[in-house]
Formats: sequence, C-alpha cells, structure tokens
Amino acid sequence: MKIQVINGPNLNLLGVREKDIYGTVNLGEIEAEIARLAEQLKCQVRFFQSNHEGEIIDCIHACRSQVDGILINPAAFTHYSYAIRDALAAVELPVVEVHMSNIYQRELFRHQSVTAPVCRGQIAGFGVDSYLLGLRGLVNIINGL
Amino acid sequence: MKIQVINGPNLNLLGVREKDIYGTVNLGEIEAEIARLAEQLKCQVRFFQSNHEGEIIDCIHACRSQVDGILINPAAFTHYSYAIRDALAAVELPVVEVHMSNIYQRELFRHQSVTAPVCRGQIAGFGVDSYLLGLRGLVNIINGL
Amino acid sequence: MKIQVINGPNLNLLGVREKDIYGTVNLGEIEAEIARLAEQLKCQVRFFQSNHEGEIIDCIHACRSQVDGILINPAAFTHYSYAIRDALAAVELPVVEVHMSNIYQRELFRHQSVTAPVCRGQIAGFGVDSYLLGLRGLVNIINGL
Amino acid sequence: MKIQVINGPNLNLLGVREKDIYGTVNLGEIEAEIARLAEQLKCQVRFFQSNHEGEIIDCIHACRSQVDGILINPAAFTHYSYAIRDALAAVELPVVEVHMSNIYQRELFRHQSVTAPVCRGQIAGFGVDSYLLGLRGLVNIINGL
Amino acid sequence: MKIQVINGPNLNLLGVREKDIYGTVNLGEIEAEIARLAEQLKCQVRFFQSNHEGEIIDCIHACRSQVDGILINPAAFTHYSYAIRDALAAVELPVVEVHMSNIYQRELFRHQSVTAPVCRGQIAGFGVDSYLLGLRGLVNIINGL
Amino acid sequence: MKIQVINGPNLNLLGVREKDIYGTVNLGEIEAEIARLAEQLKCQVRFFQSNHEGEIIDCIHACRSQVDGILINPAAFTHYSYAIRDALAAVELPVVEVHMSNIYQRELFRHQSVTAPVCRGQIAGFGVDSYLLGLRGLVNIINGL
Amino acid sequence: MKIQVINGPNLNLLGVREKDIYGTVNLGEIEAEIARLAEQLKCQVRFFQSNHEGEIIDCIHACRSQVDGILINPAAFTHYSYAIRDALAAVELPVVEVHMSNIYQRELFRHQSVTAPVCRGQIAGFGVDSYLLGLRGLVNIINGL
Amino acid sequence: MKIQVINGPNLNLLGVREKDIYGTVNLGEIEAEIARLAEQLKCQVRFFQSNHEGEIIDCIHACRSQVDGILINPAAFTHYSYAIRDALAAVELPVVEVHMSNIYQRELFRHQSVTAPVCRGQIAGFGVDSYLLGLRGLVNIINGL
Amino acid sequence: MKIQVINGPNLNLLGVREKDIYGTVNLGEIEAEIARLAEQLKCQVRFFQSNHEGEIIDCIHACRSQVDGILINPAAFTHYSYAIRDALAAVELPVVEVHMSNIYQRELFRHQSVTAPVCRGQIAGFGVDSYLLGLRGLVNIINGL
Amino acid sequence: MKIQVINGPNLNLLGVREKDIYGTVNLGEIEAEIARLAEQLKCQVRFFQSNHEGEIIDCIHACRSQVDGILINPAAFTHYSYAIRDALAAVELPVVEVHMSNIYQRELFRHQSVTAPVCRGQIAGFGVDSYLLGLRGLVNIINGL
Amino acid sequence: MKIQVINGPNLNLLGVREKDIYGTVNLGEIEAEIARLAEQLKCQVRFFQSNHEGEIIDCIHACRSQVDGILINPAAFTHYSYAIRDALAAVELPVVEVHMSNIYQRELFRHQSVTAPVCRGQIAGFGVDSYLLGLRGLVNIINGL
Amino acid sequence: MKIQVINGPNLNLLGVREKDIYGTVNLGEIEAEIARLAEQLKCQVRFFQSNHEGEIIDCIHACRSQVDGILINPAAFTHYSYAIRDALAAVELPVVEVHMSNIYQRELFRHQSVTAPVCRGQIAGFGVDSYLLGLRGLVNIINGL
Repeated sequence: MKIQVINGPNLNLLGVREKDIYGTVNLGEIEAEIARLAEQLKCQVRFFQSNHEGEIIDCIHACRSQVDGILINPAAFTHYSYAIRDALAAVELPVVEVHMSNIYQRELFRHQSVTAPVCRGQIAGFGVDSYLLGLRGLVNIINGL
Repeated sequence: MKIQVINGPNLNLLGVREKDIYGTVNLGEIEAEIARLAEQLKCQVRFFQSNHEGEIIDCIHACRSQVDGILINPAAFTHYSYAIRDALAAVELPVVEVHMSNIYQRELFRHQSVTAPVCRGQIAGFGVDSYLLGLRGLVNIINGL
Repeated sequence: MKIQVINGPNLNLLGVREKDIYGTVNLGEIEAEIARLAEQLKCQVRFFQSNHEGEIIDCIHACRSQVDGILINPAAFTHYSYAIRDALAAVELPVVEVHMSNIYQRELFRHQSVTAPVCRGQIAGFGVDSYLLGLRGLVNIINGL
Repeated sequence: MKIQVINGPNLNLLGVREKDIYGTVNLGEIEAEIARLAEQLKCQVRFFQSNHEGEIIDCIHACRSQVDGILINPAAFTHYSYAIRDALAAVELPVVEVHMSNIYQRELFRHQSVTAPVCRGQIAGFGVDSYLLGLRGLVNIINGL
Repeated sequence: MKIQVINGPNLNLLGVREKDIYGTVNLGEIEAEIARLAEQLKCQVRFFQSNHEGEIIDCIHACRSQVDGILINPAAFTHYSYAIRDALAAVELPVVEVHMSNIYQRELFRHQSVTAPVCRGQIAGFGVDSYLLGLRGLVNIINGL
Repeated sequence: MKIQVINGPNLNLLGVREKDIYGTVNLGEIEAEIARLAEQLKCQVRFFQSNHEGEIIDCIHACRSQVDGILINPAAFTHYSYAIRDALAAVELPVVEVHMSNIYQRELFRHQSVTAPVCRGQIAGFGVDSYLLGLRGLVNIINGL
Repeated sequence: MKIQVINGPNLNLLGVREKDIYGTVNLGEIEAEIARLAEQLKCQVRFFQSNHEGEIIDCIHACRSQVDGILINPAAFTHYSYAIRDALAAVELPVVEVHMSNIYQRELFRHQSVTAPVCRGQIAGFGVDSYLLGLRGLVNIINGL
Repeated sequence: MKIQVINGPNLNLLGVREKDIYGTVNLGEIEAEIARLAEQLKCQVRFFQSNHEGEIIDCIHACRSQVDGILINPAAFTHYSYAIRDALAAVELPVVEVHMSNIYQRELFRHQSVTAPVCRGQIAGFGVDSYLLGLRGLVNIINGL
Repeated sequence: MKIQVINGPNLNLLGVREKDIYGTVNLGEIEAEIARLAEQLKCQVRFFQSNHEGEIIDCIHACRSQVDGILINPAAFTHYSYAIRDALAAVELPVVEVHMSNIYQRELFRHQSVTAPVCRGQIAGFGVDSYLLGLRGLVNIINGL
Repeated sequence: MKIQVINGPNLNLLGVREKDIYGTVNLGEIEAEIARLAEQLKCQVRFFQSNHEGEIIDCIHACRSQVDGILINPAAFTHYSYAIRDALAAVELPVVEVHMSNIYQRELFRHQSVTAPVCRGQIAGFGVDSYLLGLRGLVNIINGL
Repeated sequence: MKIQVINGPNLNLLGVREKDIYGTVNLGEIEAEIARLAEQLKCQVRFFQSNHEGEIIDCIHACRSQVDGILINPAAFTHYSYAIRDALAAVELPVVEVHMSNIYQRELFRHQSVTAPVCRGQIAGFGVDSYLLGLRGLVNIINGL
Repeated sequence: MKIQVINGPNLNLLGVREKDIYGTVNLGEIEAEIARLAEQLKCQVRFFQSNHEGEIIDCIHACRSQVDGILINPAAFTHYSYAIRDALAAVELPVVEVHMSNIYQRELFRHQSVTAPVCRGQIAGFGVDSYLLGLRGLVNIINGL
C-alpha cells in the first residue's frame, strides 16, 4: 500500500512561523513521525510540499496510477482552490484532509473548506497528531475496514 | 485515565436507520469496538446516549470531577444546540467531536457546527473509525503528546 | 392500520393561550374529533403530546415497528429541531406535518420548516381541520391511493 | 355553494410531463375526481387552466360576485407572481393553495410561496389528493366549520 | 404578589465555570440575594433551574394561574428556543429577561434573542445585579408603576 | 403633446378592492381627472389598463412613434417584470412611474422597483394625486423645463 | 395654511456643485419658485436649510404648533438619520419627502430611504420641479383632497 | 429534423432599440440568416416571437410532438420566468439558450438565468452569431454528435 | 459619586409625541424621579439632553474628569452613531444604556445597537423605570458591588 | 489569423477523469478536432494547457503581439482567478470562454464566472462541440462579422 | 498652495484615549508635525477639528474658494456620514482620507468607508505618519505630479 | 535597511495595459523612481514581480532573514489569495500594501482585501505615488518613527 502525503503553502515554515498556533515541530520532524507510523502500519509513504497550487495539482495527478490514497493538508488553499478540489475529485482515490489547528476556532474564512466535500474524511485540531490519525483512517479506508 | 463517550439523538437507531448513510453496525457494536481500543490504550470508557438535550447537558456536567476527557457525537444537536456548546465550554475538559458521515457532503445545514469551536478537534467521515481515531486523539491530548 | 398523532410544545395550552390565533378548542376536543374521523376511516389512532423534544424523538422511534404512519404538529420545533427531522427520516414511515395557523402569514421565522423536507406532505391554515385533512391524506398515502 | 378551481402554467401537461414527479394522471381525470367529490360535498365546481398569468388574474377577478371560494394550484407562478397575489387579495374570497408535490423537497426557489400569505391555507405533497383535501378544507371554511 | 424565577441551562454551574465571564458567586447565593430583595419588596419568589428545555416550558405553563410574573435567564436557549418563546407568549404574564454578561460584547450568535420580543423588558451586563434590577422592574410593572 | 397612461394588473378593481389602502375612487374616475388636467396642460392623453404583462409590453412598443411620454403605474409588475423594464428602456421616451400608496410603508417586496431605474422619476403615496403630479412632472420634462 | 420647507445638508451649494446631476439653479431661486407657487396655492411657506442634523431636528420640533405640513429634502440624511425620522414621526404632521435627482438611478446606498416610511409621499427625479410637485401634493393632502 | 426558434419579449424591437447594445440588425434579418444556415445544415426551422409569457409557454408545449429541438432567447424572462423553465423541462426536448449580448457584462440581475439549468447549453455575447452557433450546437446534439 | 444622565434626540418631546409608545410622562418629570432616587442612593446627578450628535459627544468628553459614570438613552443615535460609540469608549467610564420601550418589539432597525458593545449593561422596556433601574445598576458598578 | 487555445487545470485528464460528466474524449483528440476546424476556417491555432495559474497568465501575456484572439476554458479558475481575469482584460484581444459541461446544472460555486465579464462571449454545455462553436464565434468576431 | 486639514469626532482626545490603539501623541503635536512638513513642501495648512458633523460640513463648504485640497480624517463619520461624503463630492477639490490605525484590522464596521469613493486616495495604518504621507500625496496631486 | 518590493500578477504589463486606469509609466520606470527615493531615504531595495502565486510566496519566505520590510502590490491576488496572506503573516516583518488605483471606486470584488488585515498599512489611489508614499511609511515604521 502506497500513500502520498501532500502539504500546502507555508507549511515549509512549520516550527518557525507563528509558534503559538502551530507549535515548534518542523515539517521534517512531522514527516519523520508519519514515516514511523507508516512503517508500523505496513504502508509506504512519500512526501510533497509546495507553495505552488499548480505543482500540488500536478502531484495529485501523478498519484493516479501510483498510490492508493492521499493524505493532504491544503493549508490556505483549503478555502478557495476549486482547482485542487477538481484534481482530488478527478483522481478517484480515497483522500483524507487534515489540519493541525482547529479551523473552527479561527478566522471566519477558515471555517469553510472547498476541498472537504470531495474527501472521504476530515480531521482538525490535533496538532501533529492530525496527520497520524489521518494516516490511520486512510489506511483503514483502503483496507476496507 | 477516564473518558466519557456521549452519543446524541437518533444514534440509538444506528444499524437500523438509513443504512446507506450510516452503515449496518449498531450502537452496541460500536461501543464494544471503542471499549476494545480503550483497553488497549489503557483508559476507562463509559457510555451515554440520549435523545434529550437536557440529559446530555446533565451528563456533561457530571463529567467535571469524574473524567479526563469527552468524546462526543452530538448528531443533529451539532447544528443548533448552543446549550450543549455552553456545557462543553463550562466543564473545561478536552473534548473531541466526531461524526460518522462526512458532514460536508450532505445538506447545507450540516456544514455548520456550533459545538466545534469549543472542542479541541473534530473528526468526520470515517464511519465507526471516526470514534476510534477520536479516542486515540483524545488520549494523546490528555497525555500531553 | 395504526396512526400515531404527535403534538409538540405548548399545544397542551390550546383553547387557553392566544385565542385570536389558535381558537377556543382545546387539545382534548381536537383529539376526540380526530378519533371520530379515524373510526370512520377504519384506522386506530393513539395520541402523544410533549413539550420535551427528547420525548417526541423517543415517541417517533417507538413508532418504528408499531404504527403505519405519523401525523405531527411539531409546533415551534418545526423551525429548528434538526433532531426531530432526523428522527422522522430514520423511522422510514410516511409522515404528514400539520399546522393550525397559516404559518406564512406570521413571523418570518415561522416561514421555514426544517421538518417538511422529510415529510410526505404539509397542511397549514385550516385550524382543527388541518388535523382532519392531514389524517385523510395520510390514510390515503398508506393505502397507496 | 360555488367553487372555482384554477390550475396554473404547464399543468395541462399533467400525466405527460415528468411522470416521476407528477404521476400519470392527466388534468381531465383530476378534474373529474374533484367534480365527483364536489357532488358528494354538495357544491358546484368550475374549472380553469391557463399558461397565461393575465388570464388567471382575469379569472380571479371574475370570481368576485360569482363564486364562494377559490382552489388554486398556481404552479410556477407560486414563486414570483405578485400580480396573482394581489388579485387573490383583491377579491376577498377564501382561497386555498394546493401543490401535488412536496415543494419543500425540491429546488430552493420552490420553497418560497408569494401567494400563500394571502391564502387561508396551503396543502402540498399528496399528489391528486392535494386537490381533494383542499376542496374539503375550503368547503369547511365557507361553511364556517 | 408571586414571582417565578427561572434559570436555563448550565447556570447550575455558576461560580464554578468560566469565572472570568460569570464571576465566582454560585446559583444558591444568587437565589438568596433575590429572596432577600423580594422580601424587602414584599413579594414571594420561587426558583427553578433546569438544563432541559421541556422542563422549562412545563414550568412556564405551571405559572399561568399561580404567579404574577416571570423573571427568566434563558441562557443559551435565548438564542434558538422558539418553543420557550411560544410558552412565554402563551401564559400572558409579564416576563423580564435577564443576562449576567453583556451579550452584545460576546460571540455574534449571542447578540440575537428569540425570546426578547415576547418579554416586557431585558437587562444584560450587570452580573448578579441583573437579577435584582430585573426583579425591581418586574415588580413595578405588576404594580402598574 | 401626447401622453400614454398605462395601468397594470388589478387596477381595474380600484374603488372596489381593499378600500382602506386604495380609496373608493374607481379607475374611470381617475382617468377622467387625468384627462381634465391634461386638457388644462394642453396635452392629449390616452389610456390603457391590462392584467396581462404581454399586452402592456405591446402597448409600450406601440408608443414609440406615437406619443411623447409614458405615465405608468405598473402595480405588482413593478416588483418583478424585467420584461416591462426592458420595454420601457427600449422605447426611449421619458417615463414617469406612479404609485397611489406609499410602497415603502408596505410589505418588503414592494420596496424594490425593477422599473424605476429606467424611469425619469417616481411618485408614490399621494393617492389619485400621484397620477396628477406625475402628469405635471412628465409634461415639464417633455417641455424641457 | 402654513408650510415649512426644509433642505438638508449640502443643498446650500445647489447650482454650484455637481451641475450634471443637480442643474444650475441655486437654492435661493428654488425657494423663490416655491414661494411663487405657494402664493398661487394660497399658502404661506417659510424656509430652512442646515448642514446640521440637530438643527433640522430642532426645526422639525418647532413646526409642531406652528405649521400645517412639512416639505423636506433630507439630502444625504435620507439614508441614515433615524433621528430625523423619529422627529418627523413625533410631530404628527403630514410630511412630503422630495429629491431632485432620481435616487434609484444613482449609487446603491441612495436607493434606501429611512425617512420615507414616516412620510406621506416621496417624489424623486424631477429636478426643481420635485419641490413644486411636492408642494402641490402636500397642499392637497392638507386640504383633504 | 425540425427546430423551433423562440424569441422572447422586446426582441421584436431588435435593430430599433438600444443599438449600442444590440446592434442594427432587425429580427426579420436574423431569422433569415438562421433560415439560411438551417438549409445548409439540412434542417427545417420555424419562428415564433412574443412579448407574452403565456404564448411562449403554449408554443413550447406545441413543440412536444412536432419538433426535435428548441433554440430560445428568453430575453428578460431568462431572469424570472419559472413558468417557462417548467415548460422547457416538461417537453423533454433538447433546448439551447442564446443571448446576443454578454449578460455577464450587464446589470447584476442579468447574471442569473433561471432557465439555463433545464437547457443543454447556453451561448451568450456573439450578437446575431449567438443564434447561428446555437443552431449548430443544437443540430449536433440532436444528431448525437 | 457623580452621574451624568444623557438623553438623545427627540426625548425632549417625551409626554407629547407618540404617547402609545412612550407614555405621558415628560422629560422634566423623569429627571425629577431620577433625582429623587439619586438622593436616596447618595449620588449626585446632572442632566443633559440634545438633538445634536456633536453636543452629546462634547458632553461625554466633558464627563472624563468630572463624573463617575454615565447613564445614557441615545434614542435614535443608538442605531447608527459610531461617533457616540467612540466617545463612550474613549472616556473610559462605566456606561449604562437605557431605553424606555422594548426595542426588540419594534422596527427591525431598532434591534441593533451600535453603542451597547461599549457599555457595561443595557436595560430596555420598563418605561421610566428603565432609567431608575439603570441608575441603581450603574451605582452598584461604581461601588464595585 | 492566429488563435491561442488555452485549457486550464485538470483538463489534461479529460477522457480519464469523471467520464459521466466530461465524456471519453481526451485532450489530444479535442485539440485535433479544433485543429481540423481551424484549417477549414483558414486560421492557425496553437495549444496550451496548464494546471498552474501563473503559467496561464504568462501565456495570455505572450498572446499580446502574437495572436488575434484567445479561446479559453479556464476550468476551475473560472470561479476565483481574478488574476486571469485581469490578464485577459490587459491584453485587449477578443476572448471567448468555453465550458464542456453546462455549469448551471452543477454545484452552486460553478454558476459564477469571474472571467466572463471580460470575455466577448461564453459557451457552455455542448461537450467537445463547445470548443468548435467557440472557435467559429471567435473567428467571426475577429473577421468583424 | 493652501491645504485644509480636518479632524473628525473624538480626535481631540488623541494622546489621552485608548493609547494602545492611537499612541501617546496629542492632536496639537500632530498638527505641529504637519505644519513643519507643509513648510518644507512650501504649502500653507490650516486646521479644524470638531465633534459635530454639521460643523465639518460647513468647514468643507468654506474650503471651496479658499484652499487647493483637503486632508481629512473623518474618524467614526467615515463609516456612516453620507452627508460628509456629499459635501466632499460637492466642493470638487482633491481630497485625501487618512486614518492613523489600520481600519481593516479592527471591528468589522470600520472596514467600510462611505467617504472613500469620493476621495482621491486613502491612507490607513501609519499612525501620525498617515497624515504626513497624506499631505505629500495631496500636494503631488495638486501639482499634477 | 533593506526593503523587498513585490509586484503581483499583470503588473509587468504596466504602461501597456488599460492606460486609462493605470497610466503610461511602465514597471521599470516605477522601480527606478522607487530606487531613487530609497537612495534618498538611505535604504536598499530589491525588486520582484511574478504572475505566479507560488513564486510570490517563495519570495516572501526568502525575506525572513534577509530584509527589514516588504512593500507589496498584490494586484488581483489581493482579493482571494489566503496563501499569500498566510505567508505575509508567517514572516513577521512589517508589510505595506499599495495599489495604484483607488480600489474602492472600481468593481465590488476589488473593495475587499484579504491581505490588508496582516499588513501594517495600505495606500491606494495615488498612481505611482502610492509606491513612494508606501516606501516612506514603511521606512518610518522600521525606524520606529
């Protein structure tokens, strides 16, 4: 089983930017934690981060014949990128959307997700654990549990 | 570590009602699965289900000095019960909100959660697994992970 | 054929409260009229009134294996109780919603019904006759007319 | 007692058009059923159908000194014809509005009725029976029951 | 002169929950203060608190022939319980609505009161003193001052 | 100078319908008053009333080469007939819109006029005098005063 | 018969400011025209203009026992001065609101009048003639025509 | 193959009215151009124009057993005639909606089409060519291309 | 302890204007009642009324070093004067807002208060007693009770 | 004559993704069809597809001195890319917007086009034929037909 | 070159009120800084501050033949004074609007400026420097730079 | 002191595109003017322009340890790029947003800025001078003036 993990814009600054909201763990450490859990769940993960909407779409397209599911934190694109939404719908793979912060406790524009309707599930508010729970959930969906 | 699991209105009909949306597992079976995972995670769970908003509020109040966290599926109350929201805020315990279905793929009124802003995290769309992922997330929050 | 008649909050005060809107007939008299027509239509009716949303949900659940249809005046719950809406949808029985007053001539919040979309039909504005017409309509639906 | 039955635009196609929504009975058959019930209720009915808003207004005006009540299915005009609304208000007769389908289960624009506020009652969702229940309700209103 | 004092959901936690908003006085102490003032104003007060919307409605109904006015803090029900609104309108007694916090300085949903339009007056923002001022105002209304 | 006076739906019932809003003068009498003033202002008037939107549009078209201005009371069409709006814009004549009642004091839907933006002026609230003031205003516009 | 003519803010600049919208006539000339017509209609007029909301309110109050009607062009205050609205309602005199330009062809905020609901009539779009038509309308109202 | 071409209100004034928006070609010339292309595409066309919503509905109904597709420019009816929408849906023929002007560059109310959701395609902004492109598109749809 | 009492526009007409809403007591009598209670509560009051927004702002500014609290009925300014709001916020004194009528039972625009968010409390609906209750509340706030 | 054809995000997946909405033809085949028609219409076409908003803007800029018109299917960017809108406006070339599906039959967010107001025309709903009709329309615009 | 500097309500309290938002500099010091820069830019400035909307309008009018431009901080009037907006539009001078704080980071009502559309430019968020930058910008506009 | 100047999409076409809105100066000339002023203000500037949202985000990230402030004209991204907003917030540098045109005088969608809330100031409407004023303001902020 292969999983593509995608991180959206500004997440490369994790652990550096606004630490009161996002904590002090950086993206490399998060990916390492995900990889550890993936090994335990007996699946392969590969990682991608970009601040470019188009590159994220290209990456999603490339998933089509290569992976079994997508774990995505679209960051700010969550709230307006209908192009990413269409890409996720197009590849017809199970997708899980995750957010580190509880988006319902923040600015109003973060309460709406344009990508969630084409995902299988959404997880928000658990910090780094959002990724780990999302991976577990995605693996179970792929395994048909 | 003690966890209160609360299920809101109509969830007692799980496995019976609208199976295309909610699946065929009934509430007893879900609680059994949660209990199994709780044992594995070395925490105690107790269960409560009610169709009465007032009883759910009473139950939340009773949690104050008795449990370490709340795992709640408020069902339809998610969308209008400011009283449950206030109760959750009042007890000052970590709360995780779960939904079996992806509420963002359903009617417009289900896209808004009045309780999510006072929860630590929200998980939606994984069927029974929403509860299990939610329990893991809650236990990690309590453990300060 | 068995029919459950459900009356929502404050309808126990019928004939007492705001007579210019609701008339002088009390709930007992209305139920007697419904019973008379039921006998004529050769069906059994049983009655339930409550000011408690939870009790109404419990009553709807109890209908599942026991009656052939529900005649409900949700009163104020019409306008916000998504929990009752879900209960009505869950029991998968034909439901008819009735209102004594013409809700479209009253305050704006009464123009919206959150329960009507899961009912088979809605009747409003005929005073006590709303119940009688609703019963006729419901019996015809059950009889497949 | 005399009743005018008015059917709005496209209802002449009943039994032909979109049978999954409106059934297979045609307008002539519906009018025959209404006539049978009218005879039983000892009232005279006359029928009018038009796709022309202006003709419906003319017909409503003509009701003023000639009939005791109006049973109307304004069809699509329900949702925007303030001119028909004004006509119904002007003739100062009891009016009952009926719809075969449950307009609250359909497109959003069908949820609003601009004519209902000037009617005595509204019935929706019972198929042909909406007309029959509406006739009963109207006759009772005229009889002061 | 008899006054019913009604406290809505979560107010049983006063003095315990969110002390920065609601202060440290508990509900028993507030009721004692109200009772002291009532004695001074030569009126009898009785107290009721519930987290159950239905019980509050039942309590309001019971007021009909038994008290001269109602002093109510509907708490979260203020913002969505049309059923309590209808109950307050039905009993045709003078009602005064009170809130300890200034609801206009808090979340947007707390700015709207669905019960205020059927009350005689509203008082918000004085802490415990909101109850005392409300009692004075209500007594004056009943005395026709 | 020639003026076309156009009256919209239900105005043929003036003096008969809802006298508390529209007074007891009928349309013939109003037209006679307008004619008297027209004579005094040395212009010719011709009259048209219809309950049919299409006939009003045809009449407006016919004005193109035949009259110098239009005085119109579109009645209920004021609020939704974009087709009449387009007709008025198309004939490129000065148009004055009049209403007997003050439409801003009535139902919300009457506050919006879709035709006013293509008129030169609007007069509302003077009863029959709205027509007379409108005629004066229109004549002055045509005379370039 | 005595009439108070009130002109709101910036109208002292008429004939000077934005001539494409308001024309080249100045306020003195307009008042002279109004005076001429008043003489002809056998009524007395007095004039007041101010850029100060408070002075206009004082002036309206002073009208109470001294004049028979008010002709007012509230200018920009039309769109937000609830204080002037209340003043106009308080003096219980017939009031006519006039605007030189067609406020419905201009910016969106000019489409709403907060004062119109407490006036007897509104005239807009005739340039100086709006005042003259308004005076005629007001005199007729006072004469009960 | 037979095609019905329908033109809505005010289009009979094409070439006369507002030439800066609609150009100088009149309706007869447009119909001649359509006829020429139809001959080339080997299909028969018949033409209908009306300012009467009801006549357009009648015409659409008449299409049911007589033509293979409808090419319609509903003009102002595009924005509010749910009755024409229902008629188009009822006849179950392929329908193409055309507009000469780019409706998205004009007033806000022209941005919404209530008829487009029941059409197969929409073409706007090409002047007379909108009809010709629409005819080509419709013929291809009928031919199953 | 010194209190400034401020009354906004049109309140000088109390006892004269719209007696069905505001009663027959005039402003002088109200001020006398307030003064009597102030004496009893051992505080000094001074009074100010103006129809001029600017004078009220000046008066509020003058309060800064001279009084201990402000009791204000902003009347119509309640609903739009952000300038008064800013003035109240700037002086950093406890402010209580009062209204004689229940503003939530009146026109929609009166339901919104732009000044309430910068006040300590709001009281509405008790007639003259609103001032007296407000004074008590304000004195208690200043005394730190 | 030279035409640039631009395809937006996810259209590279045509013929692969969601075939029930977009059909089975792939982008290469569509471009081949367009090229065939271009040859017939005696114009040159060049093709560009990108999932990157920035690349599409660059491509549009490059069109300025090199082509005579643009045929664009902005796909999801249609609904939010004001940057592409500005680019299209900036190059001052005739632009035609096409969509394969009828965007008015799909999700609400697809009903709004932010690019259409700066295009000459829009075509939607004809599948591959939308491109061919769009090319014809664009060529005619350039030829001044 | 002459410039009028106008400061709106509550700005006389600068340096005293809410220092965390507005800093500790008072209005006299700000005016001194503006005067220094004006000298350097070789233009004359004169200053005006008022809490009275009407006085500000009078001041703007007086600018007409006396100064070459206006630098205004309308403070709270920014958000509702259409009267000041009209005054600014009427004098036909270049106007620059300044705000010390970034009004887009504060309460929602401060995000809308009703005066901005009639100004040449707006500057917000630079503290005292907003005035200095505004003066530069204004001088450049007057010099045609 | 180092400043990064960032120009968003389509600004590379300045001086070429829509000259009536943006003038005839091209981006190179603007940058030269900025550089001249920077020299005078004793700060270094570097320039970046891109039509790619992702490249702008990358550029903002690169500013973190390298410059003291950002001067940005996000152009169309102003109105929807929450990703750029997050990037600006993440780097925790003072940011000034500039627009050449007065965005409040243009289309409605340009009135909203999603980036302004995370900037220190915004300047709009001065043409090229917006950049120069913005640079002065930014330098003063950095210098703590």
